[in-house]
Amino acid sequence: MIHSFLMIGQSNMAGRGNVADVEPIQNDHLLVLRNGRWQPFFTPVNPDRPFSGITLAESFADAYQKAHQTDVGLIPCADGGTRLAQWKKGGLLFDHAVFQARLAQRTSTIAGVLWHQGESDCTAEEAGIYGAELRQFYRDLMAELQLEDVPFLVGGLGDFLIEREPENRYFATVNRQLMEFAEQIPMAGFVSAVGLEGKTDHLHFTAKAQRSFGNRYFQVFRSLENKEKVFVEKKREDLLLKTEIDSL
Amino acid sequence: MIHSFLMIGQSNMAGRGNVADVEPIQNDHLLVLRNGRWQPFFTPVNPDRPFSGITLAESFADAYQKAHQTDVGLIPCADGGTRLAQWKKGGLLFDHAVFQARLAQRTSTIAGVLWHQGESDCTAEEAGIYGAELRQFYRDLMAELQLEDVPFLVGGLGDFLIEREPENRYFATVNRQLMEFAEQIPMAGFVSAVGLEGKTDHLHFTAKAQRSFGNRYFQVFRSLENKEKVFVEKKREDLLLKTEIDSL
Repeated sequence: MIHSFLMIGQSNMAGRGNVADVEPIQNDHLLVLRNGRWQPFFTPVNPDRPFSGITLAESFADAYQKAHQTDVGLIPCADGGTRLAQWKKGGLLFDHAVFQARLAQRTSTIAGVLWHQGESDCTAEEAGIYGAELRQFYRDLMAELQLEDVPFLVGGLGDFLIEREPENRYFATVNRQLMEFAEQIPMAGFVSAVGLEGKTDHLHFTAKAQRSFGNRYFQVFRSLENKEKVFVEKKREDLLLKTEIDSL
Repeated sequence: MIHSFLMIGQSNMAGRGNVADVEPIQNDHLLVLRNGRWQPFFTPVNPDRPFSGITLAESFADAYQKAHQTDVGLIPCADGGTRLAQWKKGGLLFDHAVFQARLAQRTSTIAGVLWHQGESDCTAEEAGIYGAELRQFYRDLMAELQLEDVPFLVGGLGDFLIEREPENRYFATVNRQLMEFAEQIPMAGFVSAVGLEGKTDHLHFTAKAQRSFGNRYFQVFRSLENKEKVFVEKKREDLLLKTEIDSL
């Protein structure tokens, strides 16, 4: 029985924390999707760029696993630097994420969606319409995947953006709309990033901050999840044919 | 204009060469598919496992780029340890590869398919039927992607398998069927692995051997390619929305 989570958004969901800055998570029940199959968890979970690193999804999954005592799978689909407009239905990122989610659904049950995005929309043109665009994205994604019954978590943008131009002028606007989104959608939850440390680029969360952020995501998840939800056992079709040298 | 190549098979296509053992390839016209979008080439190209490394697809792509003077994209779908039976139509690996290829086709033209697989079929049950299964796989893949007009390259298994049980008893049988497959399919080509060095596991090609193997793949490609093939310019939908901080 695998409970899985879809990772979508931009670089801070993909993860840019320095791998050497934190202890690796040791948990034999964590998995990552590769080529449609579940593999033992390893870092980087979401290899969108050569500098991909620690993501909040790791500590989130670890906390979920300890609470639920089940195998937990991560479905990495986050892509660095992407604007919300790039996640529109019919685009490359949207279609890729939907397909990965469907592949994962053959052998797992999606228990939630992890979203972190918005830095690239901190512009005069985009910031004001972020909330409306996010609601449309949510509706489109739900139309494809029917996940209205599981938590959809959106994280706030980091305080440290105050040090960056032009993000310092718009990130409060985007944050407010992320919060409003969570108030309007029954199963959506907002995860505050207040106080979390940024790297020297004032754009990315540090590895330690990512660990904390993942735990915050899990606390909000706890407040939303339907504890009566029934997870149906799926066939592990990838395991049926697993060979001895599969790990080589 | 991007000419792309689908990478499928098991670990020696994914690449297990030690990254530190060879000079990195420096070529600004090489790309890798990530989340459906083209990114500047980086290693590991095919991150199926934490120990993924140098793959023959790198030097192949570099040689192709220098000969064709075009952008070259790699579509990584190889998965370590997999048997041919796991690549059957309707399975996770097949469906994943078809979808990745289709995503790539929105913004590129597939110019060839790179296959290396067979070590996991060096068994009493599988070795004898390898050729028949591979022909069926080829027919199924072509039915989905209509790539009969581009080279489909299959590489031989390494000599060093002679040092491994039970591979030593069956790899010659599999190699013979790979050659027969290439003789029977008009656009298929067999790439010999004779003389290429293995790692101490006697299972994987070294990084240097992967570089040589990629060049051999390109030589066979040259002998098969239709030099009159017209590549239609595709919309770079990923680039239209590219943002300034896309590389972060």
